[in-house]
Amino acid sequence: MIGKLISSIKRTNAPIVVGLDPMMGFVPETMKKAAFAEYGETLEGAAEAIYRFNEKIVNATADLIPAVKPQIAMYEQFGVPGVMAFKRTVDLCKAKGLVVIGDVKRGDIGSTSLAYAAAHIGTVQVGTKTFAPFHEDFCTVNPYLGSDGINPFIDVCKAQKKGIFVLVKTSNPSSGEFQDRLIDGRPLYELVGEQVAAWGEQAMGDAYSYVGAVVGATYPEMGRVLRSLMPKSLILVPGYGAQGGKGKDLVPFFNEDGLGAIVNSSRGIIAAYRQDAYKSYGEANYADAARAAVLDMKQDIMEALG
Amino acid sequence: MIGKLISSIKRTNAPIVVGLDPMMGFVPETMKKAAFAEYGETLEGAAEAIYRFNEKIVNATADLIPAVKPQIAMYEQFGVPGVMAFKRTVDLCKAKGLVVIGDVKRGDIGSTSLAYAAAHIGTVQVGTKTFAPFHEDFCTVNPYLGSDGINPFIDVCKAQKKGIFVLVKTSNPSSGEFQDRLIDGRPLYELVGEQVAAWGEQAMGDAYSYVGAVVGATYPEMGRVLRSLMPKSLILVPGYGAQGGKGKDLVPFFNEDGLGAIVNSSRGIIAAYRQDAYKSYGEANYADAARAAVLDMKQDIMEALG
Repeated sequence: MIGKLISSIKRTNAPIVVGLDPMMGFVPETMKKAAFAEYGETLEGAAEAIYRFNEKIVNATADLIPAVKPQIAMYEQFGVPGVMAFKRTVDLCKAKGLVVIGDVKRGDIGSTSLAYAAAHIGTVQVGTKTFAPFHEDFCTVNPYLGSDGINPFIDVCKAQKKGIFVLVKTSNPSSGEFQDRLIDGRPLYELVGEQVAAWGEQAMGDAYSYVGAVVGATYPEMGRVLRSLMPKSLILVPGYGAQGGKGKDLVPFFNEDGLGAIVNSSRGIIAAYRQDAYKSYGEANYADAARAAVLDMKQDIMEALG
Repeated sequence: MIGKLISSIKRTNAPIVVGLDPMMGFVPETMKKAAFAEYGETLEGAAEAIYRFNEKIVNATADLIPAVKPQIAMYEQFGVPGVMAFKRTVDLCKAKGLVVIGDVKRGDIGSTSLAYAAAHIGTVQVGTKTFAPFHEDFCTVNPYLGSDGINPFIDVCKAQKKGIFVLVKTSNPSSGEFQDRLIDGRPLYELVGEQVAAWGEQAMGDAYSYVGAVVGATYPEMGRVLRSLMPKSLILVPGYGAQGGKGKDLVPFFNEDGLGAIVNSSRGIIAAYRQDAYKSYGEANYADAARAAVLDMKQDIMEALG
């Protein structure tokens, strides 16, 4: 799947992920009303509204991008119907040929991580049958528990040819509270980055490993160091756009061949119609605004990469 | 809810949590066959089997214990039907008067953590209606992202009078890989523990804070230090039983009043019938074996606490 992701990035010439993190406030009034008319003001109604919202975004952008990253929290907040909308979104995106990165940030002790890995990128056995429950291509993983929590994901990656992105340096303002603390003179995120490189060597694709890393666009200097510490890991870069990262900040995350990173934007794309630059599209044409925002993001990154 | 948990611990005289982490291998053959006969060898069939398995455990132990801790990964691995079984398990346990600790280990950047908090211990608004999606009383949270990732949970705790347990020192063998690394001469887990104490001061119940901590039974000496660093935080202690922790190892996690910690056992209780000590109950009477294992665990802990 790392091979498919790399080749899709090359084909679209766009190292871009659209973050499908729908909030009810983003969904146009008419679309919300239609879903509520059918399902009531219920969790089912909310889940249907965000699924329909996603559907138009995906249809409007799928030809431009290699991958999407649905953030499961935005679905989980609508309970079981929300989780069902997450699964429908994964299925929809895969049917469109997109690589799906489940942003689930799971991680636990070994036996539990194995269950999470099965849920998201693996399979479970039920009697004589085998199922792929959520069936993402990649998922994000939290490293706080160390190798025990990561190895079950890597085993599933190898068996299923899927991938993970391990949190190394996150994009949020307080990420430094623990991640930047110095251990033997070096920040924790560098140690995690080195461990990602070591984990990644166990599960290599052709040019890149099945084990990637998450490093926030908001920390470009740290991105430069981490890029060199994890030469075979694709870096998933959140924090572009709404969180403040710009095209020029992204250069350090890429290798000289223009590969090695994939940049996520969520609100900046899916709620583009609420920004001044795309306001003229109007709420009803939010998907066209999203397409325009993807094209602008692609240009911004490509110009920065030269 | 921290008040209810403390008073339930006092009432039952049992600082014990039963971990509802059902694996298909634990479910008796006849129970599995009955669920498959009704729902097929499907994710629905598996979810029904683990729910029925839980139901008998809960019925057999509810009068002895203050709380349960369903591990959501074990449900998530059966996809949407599995998540529905998680929700049904939460509802069942609450109807029995048990405090429910959702072991979900979520944590993300602020806006995303807010969605997770709403999902598990808070509420969401859908049009004019309000829903409590999964409706646990407590949930576990990962601290790797720092305060941004924790504060939304604390806000929800205060609004809903619910609680969280933040991972500090986990029970697994590789937990030291990052958690034990020295920062200014002190291990990372101590820094996280100090932060838990600081977060906890913002959200105090009567005697204990809404913000608790997870510290593994497998590391009693670290438990002693953390107990003193976080005097107002209840400590959720996994790792007893199947993971190797014994009653005598638990003493450092408690305060002198015999409170301050709640000890989880999962496989050691729910799959007790597979241990030599409880084999005589037989597979069909697994719930009676679980009850016996709870009584033995209670005695082991009470003897150790003196």
